[in-house]
Amino acid sequence: MKIHHETLSIRTEVKQQMINVTKRVAATVEASGIRNGFAGLFSQHTTAMLLVNEWQDALLDDISEFLNRVVQDGLPYKHNSPLYSDCDRSNATSHLRSLLFNNGVMVPIVDGQPVLGRFQSVILAELDGPRDREVKVQILGE
Amino acid sequence: MKIHHETLSIRTEVKQQMINVTKRVAATVEASGIRNGFAGLFSQHTTAMLLVNEWQDALLDDISEFLNRVVQDGLPYKHNSPLYSDCDRSNATSHLRSLLFNNGVMVPIVDGQPVLGRFQSVILAELDGPRDREVKVQILGE
Amino acid sequence: MKIHHETLSIRTEVKQQMINVTKRVAATVEASGIRNGFAGLFSQHTTAMLLVNEWQDALLDDISEFLNRVVQDGLPYKHNSPLYSDCDRSNATSHLRSLLFNNGVMVPIVDGQPVLGRFQSVILAELDGPRDREVKVQILGE
Repeated sequence: MKIHHETLSIRTEVKQQMINVTKRVAATVEASGIRNGFAGLFSQHTTAMLLVNEWQDALLDDISEFLNRVVQDGLPYKHNSPLYSDCDRSNATSHLRSLLFNNGVMVPIVDGQPVLGRFQSVILAELDGPRDREVKVQILGE
Repeated sequence: MKIHHETLSIRTEVKQQMINVTKRVAATVEASGIRNGFAGLFSQHTTAMLLVNEWQDALLDDISEFLNRVVQDGLPYKHNSPLYSDCDRSNATSHLRSLLFNNGVMVPIVDGQPVLGRFQSVILAELDGPRDREVKVQILGE
Repeated sequence: MKIHHETLSIRTEVKQQMINVTKRVAATVEASGIRNGFAGLFSQHTTAMLLVNEWQDALLDDISEFLNRVVQDGLPYKHNSPLYSDCDRSNATSHLRSLLFNNGVMVPIVDGQPVLGRFQSVILAELDGPRDREVKVQILGE
């Protein structure tokens, strides 16, 4: 059994942003030398999450607008209120939008390659940027 | 350490459909000979996802109606527009509904059996059928 | 390769409740003696789910109110109707709210510790309490 651990550092640029990390995942799998097993990716944050979906600009815009419709700005969130929270918080919507995604995703590795469908990309969803983000990668197999 | 990899092929019949794959997962675990470890299931698609929930006809209808309420048809999605996308795309709602599910689910294996609660089924959620779908199964353990 | 399996029993007290299980996960990882690998947590239920997010009272209230907004009580859910379901079911909203969470979460283990970011807690989301709940923990590594 082999285990490989690595940290991906990602700088995001705007409040809500999708970042395609598929190639970095493939490079980490290759560097690990692990040919068959599981690769796990784990956001270390509560307002930046992961998903696997299609990488297409128009769709990413649709997702962002969907998030804004489902979790509306401007409601009286307690997390944003000095009555209920210590100061400097204003990101309740970022946390709520994070529920639509995953803190971690698993990808199987077969014959040295991450197994993903033709239209699947591994994507970091920044929901409260710009920030410096870390995604931990854990690969286990042989 | 043993690793077993397999592909489940699934033909769906209508636009939005739930398919119970619990028995196929159990059969794959048994065929693998792996007694303790993890079974991972991974949709290879971006408009067909996985979930673990109760298999009951009335509930599945409620889920389908919920998806239609949360992600409405008829909005001006960019993914569906020739102004923003190459032709032949009209499935923005399928992608957005996929955010409510998972591209993959993990199931623990103990004493040769997938560990699931009494009311839990592993379900493929077709969101843009009818199509031919593939779910990759990766089992790792001993 | 080592595998460790354990069941966490959790008594919930109200209809909708968040329970922080981070310390119990860390204790289980320590008890397993596994220093590097994956810890998987798996709810055995269809109306109690898992998430990884920030543990802050005001935010947990915001999440609960968000669930009530997105999945409204009082709609004519089939799962709740004697016309479509056998008797004693009235928890369609609990099932639908469960779609916002995960039946299972994976956490990487490095140097004997679960790897979680500064603001990340592992949380059980009770959506149909009060009930006795079980979370299976499966740890695999070396």
